[in-house]
Amino acid sequence: MLTQTPYSMLQSIHSPVDLRQLQREQLGRLATELRAYLLESVSKTGGHLSSNLGTVELTVALHYVFNTPHDRVVWDVGHQTYPHKILTGRRERMSSLRQLGGLSGFPQRAESEFDAFGTAHSSTSISAALGMALASRLKGEDRHAIAVIGDGAMTAGMAFEAMNNAGVSDCNLLVILNDNDMSISPPVGALNRYLAKLMSGQFYAAAKNAGKTVLKGAPPLFELARRFEESAKGMVKPITLFEKFGFNYVGPIDGHDVDTLVTVLENIKHLKGPQFLHVVTKKGQGYKLAEVDPVAYHGPGKFDPAVGLQQSAIPSKPSFTQVFGDWLCDMAAADDRLVAITPAMREGSGMVEFEKRFPTRFFDVGIAEQHAVTFAAGLACEGLKPVVAIYSTFLQRAYDQLIHDVAIQNLPVVFALDRAGLVGADGATHAGAYDIPYLRCIPNVSVACPADENECRQLLSTAYAQNTPVAVRYPRGAGAGVAVTSTLDALPFGQGEIRRQGQRLAFLVFGTLLQAALQVAEKLDATVVNMRWAKPLDVDLLVQVAADHDALVTLEEGAVMGGAGSAVLEALAAAGLVKPLLQLGLRDEFIEHGDPAKLLALQGLDARGIEASVSQRFAALLAS
Amino acid sequence: MLTQTPYSMLQSIHSPVDLRQLQREQLGRLATELRAYLLESVSKTGGHLSSNLGTVELTVALHYVFNTPHDRVVWDVGHQTYPHKILTGRRERMSSLRQLGGLSGFPQRAESEFDAFGTAHSSTSISAALGMALASRLKGEDRHAIAVIGDGAMTAGMAFEAMNNAGVSDCNLLVILNDNDMSISPPVGALNRYLAKLMSGQFYAAAKNAGKTVLKGAPPLFELARRFEESAKGMVKPITLFEKFGFNYVGPIDGHDVDTLVTVLENIKHLKGPQFLHVVTKKGQGYKLAEVDPVAYHGPGKFDPAVGLQQSAIPSKPSFTQVFGDWLCDMAAADDRLVAITPAMREGSGMVEFEKRFPTRFFDVGIAEQHAVTFAAGLACEGLKPVVAIYSTFLQRAYDQLIHDVAIQNLPVVFALDRAGLVGADGATHAGAYDIPYLRCIPNVSVACPADENECRQLLSTAYAQNTPVAVRYPRGAGAGVAVTSTLDALPFGQGEIRRQGQRLAFLVFGTLLQAALQVAEKLDATVVNMRWAKPLDVDLLVQVAADHDALVTLEEGAVMGGAGSAVLEALAAAGLVKPLLQLGLRDEFIEHGDPAKLLALQGLDARGIEASVSQRFAALLAS
Repeated sequence: MLTQTPYSMLQSIHSPVDLRQLQREQLGRLATELRAYLLESVSKTGGHLSSNLGTVELTVALHYVFNTPHDRVVWDVGHQTYPHKILTGRRERMSSLRQLGGLSGFPQRAESEFDAFGTAHSSTSISAALGMALASRLKGEDRHAIAVIGDGAMTAGMAFEAMNNAGVSDCNLLVILNDNDMSISPPVGALNRYLAKLMSGQFYAAAKNAGKTVLKGAPPLFELARRFEESAKGMVKPITLFEKFGFNYVGPIDGHDVDTLVTVLENIKHLKGPQFLHVVTKKGQGYKLAEVDPVAYHGPGKFDPAVGLQQSAIPSKPSFTQVFGDWLCDMAAADDRLVAITPAMREGSGMVEFEKRFPTRFFDVGIAEQHAVTFAAGLACEGLKPVVAIYSTFLQRAYDQLIHDVAIQNLPVVFALDRAGLVGADGATHAGAYDIPYLRCIPNVSVACPADENECRQLLSTAYAQNTPVAVRYPRGAGAGVAVTSTLDALPFGQGEIRRQGQRLAFLVFGTLLQAALQVAEKLDATVVNMRWAKPLDVDLLVQVAADHDALVTLEEGAVMGGAGSAVLEALAAAGLVKPLLQLGLRDEFIEHGDPAKLLALQGLDARGIEASVSQRFAALLAS
Repeated sequence: MLTQTPYSMLQSIHSPVDLRQLQREQLGRLATELRAYLLESVSKTGGHLSSNLGTVELTVALHYVFNTPHDRVVWDVGHQTYPHKILTGRRERMSSLRQLGGLSGFPQRAESEFDAFGTAHSSTSISAALGMALASRLKGEDRHAIAVIGDGAMTAGMAFEAMNNAGVSDCNLLVILNDNDMSISPPVGALNRYLAKLMSGQFYAAAKNAGKTVLKGAPPLFELARRFEESAKGMVKPITLFEKFGFNYVGPIDGHDVDTLVTVLENIKHLKGPQFLHVVTKKGQGYKLAEVDPVAYHGPGKFDPAVGLQQSAIPSKPSFTQVFGDWLCDMAAADDRLVAITPAMREGSGMVEFEKRFPTRFFDVGIAEQHAVTFAAGLACEGLKPVVAIYSTFLQRAYDQLIHDVAIQNLPVVFALDRAGLVGADGATHAGAYDIPYLRCIPNVSVACPADENECRQLLSTAYAQNTPVAVRYPRGAGAGVAVTSTLDALPFGQGEIRRQGQRLAFLVFGTLLQAALQVAEKLDATVVNMRWAKPLDVDLLVQVAADHDALVTLEEGAVMGGAGSAVLEALAAAGLVKPLLQLGLRDEFIEHGDPAKLLALQGLDARGIEASVSQRFAALLAS
């Protein structure tokens, strides 16, 4: 039904300028068309759905009331910006979403002047918008800066840092808390519990009087009168957390009532100083299946909106994430010292089963990577064995904690680094490209790079057996399909193995590019070494291989600069061994979104690309 | 006077067990002796003073009431733990404080079982203590975990993340907010303003009734009665921020009244769930000169307590910090787009003069490195030119923001990285050893390594002239004493220079070890190249030098693993140039506190050590 809507009004909106020509009464219909278009579009491309269905009315209202792009809107996390993209001249390009050369799934400054700030990692919006607001003030410009942030993102420390700083700044900053229906997923942390409380009882009733409430920041006399009146009635409204930070708090209001949204935003626009608007929305709003199961529809692939998501009939190869999840349960069953920590990534990190089986040993700390790592250090001090499951890109958030709290104290924390290497549709912001360089320079830290699923399990067991910090990095998605053992046996720490004995040329492989290397090596009769550890490096094996070959090729799905190949160069230099060496890995550039296999090929890291690079560099050697 | 106290009681305290034998009435005298001993001790060794004078009574009370080390006390930042060290068996070793092989200026797990968690960077304590508290619960142990955190440290995001997580945890966690007298330094941020409010008016008066106040968390009926009573009187006490996070808030109480502290801590000890005690102390308490100027006495060198700090008669060489501060003012005068940001390091980063001259362009965001960097990105989006002044070690806190918000968007932010390399007395936690590896693997980011003070100014100007992110790293303290020009001229971007033409052997130097290299090169008739940039590398110059010499030595005050020397190895490998190369820099180990010159020598990075390493490695070459 929805898909048959003709989008006649939506098609007339080429930019927010067109939107602002509409009558207020027309906005409801526009929202309906926008939601239908969104659903149709995402069902064809895959992408984020629930969050975007939740922001339709807010997006319409923001562009209607504010003078974008002159006024800046910063969308936290940014995966809820499809309606924004559709209304800002990118409707017809939605079919290219998250594909190579197509629209990004996140706002990008390079993509549109309406994307005031690139986002993807959570909780950056208030800091960025505050910077914009204070820049405007310095430059004497009349400009609004608006941050739209979800309740999950509000739990991250940097949002708090920004609130703390903004609350004392005299600037035109509006923070909009997009509070998703609390009833859906269990609240994590005190802040979410607090928000739930705000929404209950008398607070939520106040939504109907939003137009009146909003006045309270304005004329001092009116405000005084209001307080006196309320005080006399013994009805003093508790001061919210956000007011304690120096913001004027308005809300909560219904984020699916576009008329109320416009009224409230119009009023707020004329208030001075930092404003905080609490908007309540529902993930998946308007699409029943997503409303009922917003987690399943958070980031679906292609599907038929009339039918909904279908279970795939063919069981797929297990992903590395699943291999980790299974290992975690098995090791926890074998060792009751094991505790597992996730910064709000229970599903993404494969820990659903673990939480079910070991609820008291599972800690979801919210979007709080810094806390997650130091909290793990505290657990380790007491003799527990913490496993921190975290994406490579998100460990960047806890880099100092890893150094200062875990590595310096040499505590036995296992870091299960998911999404190491290329990540595909999420693009540059989520790339797990830097973990080898940023980890291996830190004393006491070891870094394992499993070549396949089974080795992933074995190296997790190996990491767990150490009494020092160890990271095991593994990629997004499935591997080669190697059968995974059910034992918890460890491999020798810090040792690699020769997988194929060839001659003249040797591939030194760190991780899952091993399969491609083996293919190429067959053609060239080259040796293939599965190095397994970026740190400590298996120097004995390396020296032996270097001595027996004329040239070396290092291979890793990670940044070449400072990566595992550089570790090889360092070890060779230290050993006084001088060999021609070709480093293959990710180039020194940010890699955009797209199909992972295509991206790998573009980086020259598929078998064909590897062969081409090797043949070119070592043409003389191979011809001899 | 103070120094003549005989310490007779203090000398009988060899551990907190002895302390707990004392009568309560004796604790006041013990505190007096402890304070006197502390002052005498720090005046002889140098070190942190004001903060330690402020924690004397709190330390006595904590060890008196709690069963340390069974109960865990985590001291945030940790530079206020001298009284703790004195009471936990380290009194006589205080004369070795912050010296090579002596006591650390921070808690260290390796130093004492009473040091439950190593700290130094701010705001880690609540996370660590929560980990310990939850570990105890899992293990079924009856143990208290206590975090002592300052009001400054409370503004950092990770403290908030931990509070958010702890507030919903059912555990024996006590957070003690050590709130230093607000009147001393201007409050930064909304939280500090809020704390000042808590301390004013009726709140502070409540301190006298602390014994009664503390009951409020306990029996529900009593609590109900109290609320009813207060409500009836129209005197409902506002709910504090900390209660909104799920903590039971007690305070504020006088942190220099040891008797009240003991009473309140005894009461709190028996309450269940997360507790929050707000203690008000005064930095420098008990030493008049420090009370009047706690900033000057924050970390003094040696001094005579009877006289106080004296101005040095001989003007010292300007530090790199001063060179930066002067450049910042000069560039700001020349370009009104310049804005400067510090995460609570105005003095340490040399920005006092800048704030005076350009107050509207100066942003102290509090201890909030993450926010600082993304805030700078927001400012840069609006055409301003932000300079983020930050210690190398603290940029680790904002690593993800640097990647995600600055580098991916390729925004022109200058990072002035102070304290790069060895830091001396502060030790491993503050080492600026990793910035070259962790920065150079990030696309779009450049890293400059000035060889002396004048080049520091020139490279800051060069960095500022770029339209991309550039970090300029410079060490703690003074350089060689090179005269600094007053111009704002830039050097060629990404280019090094040959400083000395020799033969056979070439030093490739990144930074201030250039002076030592020149000394060694004179002896060996070696070439010395001042590379200036770790990224982009001057590959043309490198290739030319490599072609003209038989062996190369790279030299940097930073981690060897993944450092600038590795960049050279990568470039040589890529160019197909095969040369013997010796990488000199910081070894893959954490470097403890001590005299910087001694530490440099221990790392083999003074002229003598460099010569020894080179002579050993290239003996045959040099003999030929």
